Parts: sequence; C-alpha cells; structure tokens
Amino acid sequence: MKKPTRERWSSKFSEWFDWVLEKAEIYDYGRYPIKGMGIWRPYGFKIRKYVLNIIRKYLDEKGHEEILLPLLIPEYYLRKESEHVRGFEDQVYWVTHGGLEELDVKLALRPTSETIITPMVALWVQSYKQLPKKYYQIGSIFRYETKATRPMIRLREVTTFKEAHTFHDSFEDAERQVSEAIEIYKKIFDTLGIPYLISQRPEWDKFAGALYTIAFDTILPDGKVLQIGTVHHLGQNFTKAFEVRIQLKDGTIDYAWSTSYGISDRIVATLIAVHGDDRGLVLLPSIAPIQVVIIPIPAKNEEDTKRVVEYVRKIKQELAERGVRVFIDERREVTPGYKYYDWELRGVPIRLEIGLREVENNTVTYVRRDTLEKKTIELEEFIDKIHEIFQEVEENMRERAKKYFKERLSRADTIDEARRKIEEKGGIVEIPWCGSLECGLRIEEESGLRVLGTPLLNEEVDIKDKRCPICGNTARSVLRLAKTY
Amino acid sequence: MKKPTRERWSSKFSEWFDWVLEKAEIYDYGRYPIKGMGIWRPYGFKIRKYVLNIIRKYLDEKGHEEILLPLLIPEYYLRKESEHVRGFEDQVYWVTHGGLEELDVKLALRPTSETIITPMVALWVQSYKQLPKKYYQIGSIFRYETKATRPMIRLREVTTFKEAHTFHDSFEDAERQVSEAIEIYKKIFDTLGIPYLISQRPEWDKFAGALYTIAFDTILPDGKVLQIGTVHHLGQNFTKAFEVRIQLKDGTIDYAWSTSYGISDRIVATLIAVHGDDRGLVLLPSIAPIQVVIIPIPAKNEEDTKRVVEYVRKIKQELAERGVRVFIDERREVTPGYKYYDWELRGVPIRLEIGLREVENNTVTYVRRDTLEKKTIELEEFIDKIHEIFQEVEENMRERAKKYFKERLSRADTIDEARRKIEEKGGIVEIPWCGSLECGLRIEEESGLRVLGTPLLNEEVDIKDKRCPICGNTARSVLRLAKTY
Repeated sequence: MKKPTRERWSSKFSEWFDWVLEKAEIYDYGRYPIKGMGIWRPYGFKIRKYVLNIIRKYLDEKGHEEILLPLLIPEYYLRKESEHVRGFEDQVYWVTHGGLEELDVKLALRPTSETIITPMVALWVQSYKQLPKKYYQIGSIFRYETKATRPMIRLREVTTFKEAHTFHDSFEDAERQVSEAIEIYKKIFDTLGIPYLISQRPEWDKFAGALYTIAFDTILPDGKVLQIGTVHHLGQNFTKAFEVRIQLKDGTIDYAWSTSYGISDRIVATLIAVHGDDRGLVLLPSIAPIQVVIIPIPAKNEEDTKRVVEYVRKIKQELAERGVRVFIDERREVTPGYKYYDWELRGVPIRLEIGLREVENNTVTYVRRDTLEKKTIELEEFIDKIHEIFQEVEENMRERAKKYFKERLSRADTIDEARRKIEEKGGIVEIPWCGSLECGLRIEEESGLRVLGTPLLNEEVDIKDKRCPICGNTARSVLRLAKTY
Repeated sequence: MKKPTRERWSSKFSEWFDWVLEKAEIYDYGRYPIKGMGIWRPYGFKIRKYVLNIIRKYLDEKGHEEILLPLLIPEYYLRKESEHVRGFEDQVYWVTHGGLEELDVKLALRPTSETIITPMVALWVQSYKQLPKKYYQIGSIFRYETKATRPMIRLREVTTFKEAHTFHDSFEDAERQVSEAIEIYKKIFDTLGIPYLISQRPEWDKFAGALYTIAFDTILPDGKVLQIGTVHHLGQNFTKAFEVRIQLKDGTIDYAWSTSYGISDRIVATLIAVHGDDRGLVLLPSIAPIQVVIIPIPAKNEEDTKRVVEYVRKIKQELAERGVRVFIDERREVTPGYKYYDWELRGVPIRLEIGLREVENNTVTYVRRDTLEKKTIELEEFIDKIHEIFQEVEENMRERAKKYFKERLSRADTIDEARRKIEEKGGIVEIPWCGSLECGLRIEEESGLRVLGTPLLNEEVDIKDKRCPICGNTARSVLRLAKTY
C-alpha cells in the first residue's frame, strides 16, 4: 500500500487511516473473510489496553464494578422491551443451531446488554439500601450493519464495547448518574486529548428504549463527525419489562430506574485520527506501548560501537527505573534512517539518536514525535525531566487537537448558510431552532445534514434575536448539524 | 440455599461448589435462561482478573503477544482442516441470520481459534527470520455441550479461554515450544497452589487436528479428575490447510509448524475447589480481591469507639502503603460475628479484629483464613511482616493441596485393583501397559474408567517386572486411569 498523505478536507483521510492501521500493525482489517470483523494485532492491542486502563480508572473511581455477561440473549428476552427490539431487530445476528440440532429458542448475539443485566439485577437487588448499583463490562457486541463498514468505526463485531449499566431508586438519582457519567466521559476524552461537543440527541435519534440520550461527538480530519460516546436515561422501561421491583425508603414497592452508557473501539480510532500526521501515528505517552525508542548509531570502529551500546543500555536502565516503557532498536540489517521512519510510523513519542558524540559528551539527542523537533541535552537532565517532557508532549497534542476542532465549529442563521459552512470547512454548525419536532425534522431534511441535537441545559447558548429558519418563531435553542459517519 | 458441608468423598462437593459460587457472589449460574452460560459478578470478576494477571505475566515473560481475534468463523474455514471439523462439528453454534436476512455463509461461534489465527499468520509471516511467533488471546469460546453442564467446569460459553498459538520453522522448534508451554503452565499452576499430573493423552483422545496432546489434570475434592490445561503439537496440519508457506534458512519454501495451548475458567474453579473449606472460599493472598479485612469492634462508649475507628484507619493506611489490598468493614447494622462469617465465606486471607484492647496495647489480633488460627501481636511487627505472613499462608495452602493430591495417587497391577483403588479414594491410578492401542482401549473399556494417558518421557516410571493386564506382555509404560469430569 502506498503512503497517502492525510490531507484534511479530502477523501484521503480514509485511505490514510487504512494505511496507518495496516503499516503500524494495529488492526488487520478487510482480509479476514467476514465483513466488518478485524483482528487486533499486538501493537494495537497494547494501545487498546492502555486506553482501557484509563477508562477503567475513571469508572472504578466512581464505584463502578466490572462484570462479565453472557454473549447470547434468548429471543424472548430481547423482545421484552418493545421499543428496544424495534430499534435492533434488523441488526441482530441470530444463532439458530447447536451442532446439527435446531435450537428451540433463537439466540441473539448481544447488540448491547440491557436485556441481560436487567433480569439479573432483579435477582440481586431488593431494596433501595442496595442502590445505586453501577456495573460495567468490556467485551464484544454484534450489529449486522447494512451501511458500509469501516475499520474500528463501523463494525459488525465491535470488540471493544465498554457498556455501563446502573440502577437507582428514583428518576432523580438516575439523572444524577447521567451527570456523573458525562463527567467521567469528559475526563476520559480530555485525558486522551479528544475534543468533543456534548449534545442531547433529538427525539427521533435516541437509543431504542431510552427516555433521552446524551452523546459525545468529535470531528475527524475529513471534517465528518463521529459519535464517540453515549449516555442514556432509561427510565423504568427496562426495569418494568424485567420486573426489577425494589422496596423504597417509605416501605412502598416500585420499579427501579436505570441508565446505560457506552464507549467503543471508536475511541481508539479517534485517538489515531485526531493526533496522527502524514508520517503515521502520533501517540500520547500515556497510551504508547513504547514511550521512548533508542536508536544506537554505529561508530566507525567496533570498540566505539561497543561504547555506544553500553551507553544506550545504561540509558534504558535509568529510564526503566523511572517507569518509562523503553525499547532499544538494535537491528543490524537496517539503517538508522529506516528505523526513524519505522518508529515515526508507529508514533513513539520520543526517539533517542545516540552516537559516539552523545557518549563522549554525556548527552542525548532526542526527537519529539509530535513536533519532530530535535534537541541535544545532558543525559542527567533528560532522565530527570522525562516525565515533564511527556507532559509537554501531551499538552501540545491536546491543544493542537482542540484548536483544529474549534476551527470547525460554526454558526449559521439559515439552512443555506449552514450547508455552505459545512461544505467550506466541515465540522459542526449550529442553527437557531424553535424547539418543535416538526421544524427539527424539516431542518434535517432540507439541509441534507444530520441533526446531532441540542446543547445541554447547563451550556450557555446565544440565541438573542434569533429565529427558527423554518417557522420564523423565536429560537429557544440551537440545533447542531453535521455530516456524520 | 442451605450451607452444605464440603465432605470430600461424597456428592456434597458439587452442592458445596454451587453454594460457594452463589453466596460469595462469584458467578451467577443456572438463573440466566441459557443453559451453560453464567455471569461473573464483581467479586468473582476480580479473582478472575488476578488469576489472568498471573497467566499473562508468565506468557509475556516468554515473548507471547496478546491479540484479539473475531468471534465468528465462516463455515468453509472451519472445514479446511478435516480432523478438526470432525472433532467439533456437533459442538458448534451456528449463526444463520443477520437481521431478517439469511446469511450466504453460515458462521460458527468459535469453539477455539486455530482456524482464525492460522490464515492471518499466512498474511503476516513469510520467512523463518520472523519466527517463532507466539500469540495468545483471552476471550469467549462456545461449545454446544451435550453432557450435563456445570458452572465454570463444563460450560457452553467458556468466558475465560486463554488460548496461545505459536508458529515455527521446524518440527523440532514446535516441540521445543511444547516444552516451554509445559514449563509456563507448571509455573502458573504452582503459583496458584494447584497440584497436577502431566500426561500425554492417548491417541484416541487428542485434540482434533493435533499430532499429540499433553494435558494437565488435577483432582477435585470429590476424587474426580479435571483437565485444567492442554498443550498441542499441531504439526503442519493447520498451516497446510491455510497455506502458511515460509522461506527456510536454506532458501527452500515449506509450511510452518504450529502449536496451541489453552487454559479455561476451570483454573478459577479449581482454585476454589482445592483450597476451599466448609466455611467457604479460602483465597491465596496473590489473587484475593481483599487481602486484609479489618473489623472494628465497637467499644462501650462513643469516645472509645472513635479511638478504635481512628486506629483502624491508621492500620489501613499503613497496609495500603505497603501495597496491601485492605478493606474496613464499617457496617453498623450487623454484628462483628456476622462480619467474621461473611468474610470467611469470601475467603479473605487475613482478618483483623480490632477493639479497645488492641488500641490500648498498640497491637492487632489477626485470624488466618487458611488455618483459622488467631494471634495477637504488636502493630508494628504485623505491618512489617505482612508480606511474610502472606507467604506463609500461600505455602501452607500449597502444601495442603499437594498433600491431599498425593494421597489420591495410587498404583495397581490389575484392572480390578485399579477399579477398587478409585472406588476407595478416587484420584488417579496407574496401571502397567504394553503400549498397544488395542490394550489401551480394552483397559479403558473393562475398567469403566477414563484413560488420562501416559507420563511424559522425561518422567521416571517404575515398571520393572510389570506386565500389561490385558496381553501379559512386558510393560513399556503405565496408563493413568480416573473418573473424570
């Protein structure tokens, strides 16, 4: 595969993305003979692991408990919540046979796990005293997508689905949980330098079975918008269907309330997309399988080369003692230049180029992957400051991504203007809206864009003197529009 | 559920096992409406996680790389290795529909992943220089078991299947890998205090598609034998079927060689079974979600109780600083006695009972879960020695399990004697064997026991003057027999 430039604003991003997944050995896609299913290769698996560690950390901090649920759902369970099944019916894979026998009950590969966890909670929880309960699982879900599949972005097997399921004794406590989930997701995306807008999805685009859905959206380098996380208030829809009855504080019995929220493989896809450049991956130190790669530059004679090797090992040792994931590339069959190319492709945050000069001056020459800036400093200083350097790299990467994102947010007063803005620079455009379902649907239809929804109530929106472009009535909020994945 | 005593030698073990899984909130089984599929609850999930960390550690140490493969296999892939498909055909779940459409190609829920990884390796590896390659995955596999299912022991969804897949440039290197795998598994089981015998499975009981199979077997408290790990030399069977051609050092092209080895949920089942007692779980500190639980004993007045609480928090702090997973049970609605019962059931290795006396003497009173022995010592000494105490607990538990295991190994000269020994004390009996397939099968048939196989070649076997009980010829090895799960 030839290396495509990333060229924001063109279709090249998509080629670039496929190229980087293959060449950096992250995810093998399109070669396994089932559409929409890929393989996490060792390097990609490690990135995924560090990302999951960050997700787990923020969930655990807030009292979420990890569990593991069965992968199959009996048909009659999936059908218990009627909105839910309607939303997923034509996307479900069905297991119909065990060995040579036909099964009595068809089994669905889980498209999400509300209908697995809720009946279990009915067995585990009887009283408000046991609530709230916050569970999560990380595993595969399946959707028979009819749209074009894309590696990590639109899959038929989503192998990294983090889904949280929480249970509460009141509507309000579930709503408080929705806020907590939003705060957790902010921390996760902020840590990973992924910019986002948070919107309440319109009525016609909420999760099947939810009262309402809050979504995190980001902008990929081609200007198209990707949904990267959702939070749902499920009301009592599932707890009624599965009879999760609890005793309340006043002694009465009621159904529990629940929420669910999910993050998928897309979080890794986004990391790669928003930080990468024409040379390949650019990884944040916090999730890089190798944080520092050392390239020893052979000297002119054997003895000096030996000195380089010894020096390099000492550096490795000292970095490792400070908890740095460090690797020496000692390959003999390739040139240093080839190695630079190779590790840039794989996004290693810091590269050390160590030759005789560095040995003699007791220095290191290092190159930052994010800026490609090269510096030579004292070895001791480098070792002392390594975590500071990592911090700087992360901050620079976050700022850069945020800047790109902000440049792609715009406002428009008319549908034409909105469409033009999106044509010009992609991203997300906000347009005044009266709040009526009818006008919302017409804005979607006439603009040919997708409605992402409205800002949350606690977000300030400037709609002074603005009017809905459909009915002309005073605007009560804005609608966010975009081309989406 | 009433608490059954464990009573080795009776059917009570099985009841005890179900009881402990439920009451200690490890694994919810038999209540989800698909046979053979259960739920890992938070406490069980943590135990599983610590066990997996140990498995990962020993695999990573030897250069194994973790990956994640698709869960579905197209029918024609599964059929490529003919022995393999014959072995699994009547155990495979088939996905036949996506949404409302019938699929063109039936998809199998993977029963194991040889037929997924091997075709991928054909794309990744071209030369002996890239070999050996050692991959592993931890995930779910599915088998439509027709035998009675048992929680964690015989499941239709095995949610914890660690399968390693390795690729080599020669028969010998694959054989070396088999030895390496055996050494890794020894370390894993030794660390967990799980005793085992290693046998080469007889021809008629090897993995479908393998040249030969080496298995680890342990003895559960009811005297029945459980297979807990297997290692397969796959020869070129799979690499030929999927055309993994590699260039050898001499420039010629040949098919690669492969091995695979697996460990399942059974490793957690065995941990629980071999170490537990009538009060419930007994956990090794290395895999205990909580290593030390502190029970504050309320004093007679508010002020003294406050002193206890402060003292207890200080202990927690100091233990946590030493990397101990510690929890204070501050529940007010239950008595200390209830808490003792509760944490014994959950197998917490060390319990601290802290009242006013301990505060005033600056001591701790601690109870070891493995021996139920109670001691009072200086606080400072306890803190300093905590990791030593953990060591002692682990060694005692390992020794105890090993002793039990050894008592259940026996030898016999005749089939009648073999049968009697198994009736008397369960476990494994060795019987002399001439080495012929025919006599092996007859021994299995006439004894009504299962043939586990023969000791490995490097194990010394005393067969001087012994004769095969079927043909009367000189014994060349022994056959191991048992009642198995």
